[in-house]
Amino acid sequence: MDRTEIQDLGEFGLIGKLTEGLVKRQPSTILGVGDDAAVVDPAGKRVVLSTDMLVEGVHFDLSYVPLKHLGYKAVIANLSDICAMNAMPTQIVVGLGISNRFSVEALEELYLGMKLACELYEVDLVGGDTTSSPSGLMISVTVMGLADSDKLVSRGGAKSGDLLVVSGDLGSAYMGLQVLEREKSVFKDAPTVQPELNDHAYILERQLKPEARTDIVRELSDLEVKPTSMIDVSDGLASECMHLMAASGLGVRLYEDKLPIDSKTYDTAREFNLDPTLCMLSGGEDYELLFTISPDDYEKLRNHPKLSFIGHMTDNPDERIMVTKSGTDVELKAQGWDGIKKG
Amino acid sequence: MDRTEIQDLGEFGLIGKLTEGLVKRQPSTILGVGDDAAVVDPAGKRVVLSTDMLVEGVHFDLSYVPLKHLGYKAVIANLSDICAMNAMPTQIVVGLGISNRFSVEALEELYLGMKLACELYEVDLVGGDTTSSPSGLMISVTVMGLADSDKLVSRGGAKSGDLLVVSGDLGSAYMGLQVLEREKSVFKDAPTVQPELNDHAYILERQLKPEARTDIVRELSDLEVKPTSMIDVSDGLASECMHLMAASGLGVRLYEDKLPIDSKTYDTAREFNLDPTLCMLSGGEDYELLFTISPDDYEKLRNHPKLSFIGHMTDNPDERIMVTKSGTDVELKAQGWDGIKKG
Repeated sequence: MDRTEIQDLGEFGLIGKLTEGLVKRQPSTILGVGDDAAVVDPAGKRVVLSTDMLVEGVHFDLSYVPLKHLGYKAVIANLSDICAMNAMPTQIVVGLGISNRFSVEALEELYLGMKLACELYEVDLVGGDTTSSPSGLMISVTVMGLADSDKLVSRGGAKSGDLLVVSGDLGSAYMGLQVLEREKSVFKDAPTVQPELNDHAYILERQLKPEARTDIVRELSDLEVKPTSMIDVSDGLASECMHLMAASGLGVRLYEDKLPIDSKTYDTAREFNLDPTLCMLSGGEDYELLFTISPDDYEKLRNHPKLSFIGHMTDNPDERIMVTKSGTDVELKAQGWDGIKKG
Repeated sequence: MDRTEIQDLGEFGLIGKLTEGLVKRQPSTILGVGDDAAVVDPAGKRVVLSTDMLVEGVHFDLSYVPLKHLGYKAVIANLSDICAMNAMPTQIVVGLGISNRFSVEALEELYLGMKLACELYEVDLVGGDTTSSPSGLMISVTVMGLADSDKLVSRGGAKSGDLLVVSGDLGSAYMGLQVLEREKSVFKDAPTVQPELNDHAYILERQLKPEARTDIVRELSDLEVKPTSMIDVSDGLASECMHLMAASGLGVRLYEDKLPIDSKTYDTAREFNLDPTLCMLSGGEDYELLFTISPDDYEKLRNHPKLSFIGHMTDNPDERIMVTKSGTDVELKAQGWDGIKKG
């Protein structure tokens, strides 16, 4: 692969090259990349705004995450925050801090992933800031979305008795990371061994190319269901449950046998001597939507193929219970990723 | 000063502490810090969006920039981008990457500066992301502003014969940086010598505590003047002139004797053996507004105490001329800061 140094292009040349070929997909985008700021016409809707910072060595390891996937995922994590408000993402702005280790071609790969996410989700990349960094890569993405004011859903607002629903399946992104880390350490010990990744296509895709659930936002709207509270699963189910509880002043009861797990994820957890349930509760980055609905809406969603009813809200704010498969109550702990390995 | 480690508070504890005492100043802010995203009601206006990334060792040096000033300036640089669209800033979101070198108290200082800027400019801090970093501090600020659609001004849109106007004075922030860098090297050689900063209060303030020209945006509106094109002076006058030229497909003629410089800045440039005009043309971070107006609006602004008429646009896009005090035409070069020292 050719290597073009960033200083050969200069800042404006680099921005021009990276943003080449951007097309406008949102009617709300009035002015995109290339001025002091972007201009968006919200046309009577509410604006939803969120930001995320990704730092090399903390959020990603370039020895096993391809730059294109990193760009894709950086955008998806942000789109997911907008979905969690029951809104649709419309524009992003991107800040990059880049060390001279990266060539123009490497940054083009990163942008390729960002542009692909924008294309698939019909989101416009409307601005950014590209600067140098003494070491490592840092990516800041800020996303803007739009929603009718009566459609917005926050983390608070659930009532006791509301049903807890989650989209898709859980724990796969975490198990994908375990596979990547194992292959990385195998590679360090024996660099000529080919990585054994084929068996793990699904969980690797969940880790490397996650999706934001705009489809769920759209389908809930079509089915005329407005969740009473909602959050996206970025830190793990247990942690997100606690956020919903705290924001609504309620307790929660989860049922272990209702938690959705893919069979590949289950088998891989066993292979790694990890508890599959703990992977669902504490593994993050699934970017599924966790939300509560009024029992009145149960019939509308009960047969929805992408949704699982996993528990309900209770009026005791100190109650944070998972009922195990054997019928025992255990207390939920939001221990995050570190907790899985210690646990 | 006490030192509290960030891990003692945890991510959510830290965010809670940093965002303590935030009050809502904008009626457009519906939902601020604490959910997946912030919600803003644009109430029929256009949304203006811009982002900036600041990296330790590239954009700031903590050995002479106090954290509170850094926080203030990080916000101001973004507000200035919104002013450059002839819009008013209303909300910001902040991303921080922090190494374990920083205590909770240090981050509170940084946030104190950000909160002060928000207070003075009546802007709401509505969200953010705080994460660890393997080394150094990085700050990403994204700002949102609002404007009536017929008030927005981009970089393009000037016509031949339009007058070029700049607010305030130029080159001071650059000279402030020179003083700080000199005192830093004196301090390295003789750590007991007290820094000689008192004589340079104005230019140090311009470097350490710059302001965004929301006042100019407001006054232009009151005077019913809509600029035909506008940009803020962050990289230096010459570079910004070239952006306006390129966006409008025009040339420019500047007059050296019309360029506004503060007398302290002039004297300090001489003391450092630097050409004061070059400091105005190539020194950045003044955050003044550079704009063009139709000659029809000249009478409305000619006696404005904060504005200088420094030149005009011409219909030859290859013309980039400064007429010197001696009446000679010289070609403008956008060489940035590096150019001043080489030149």
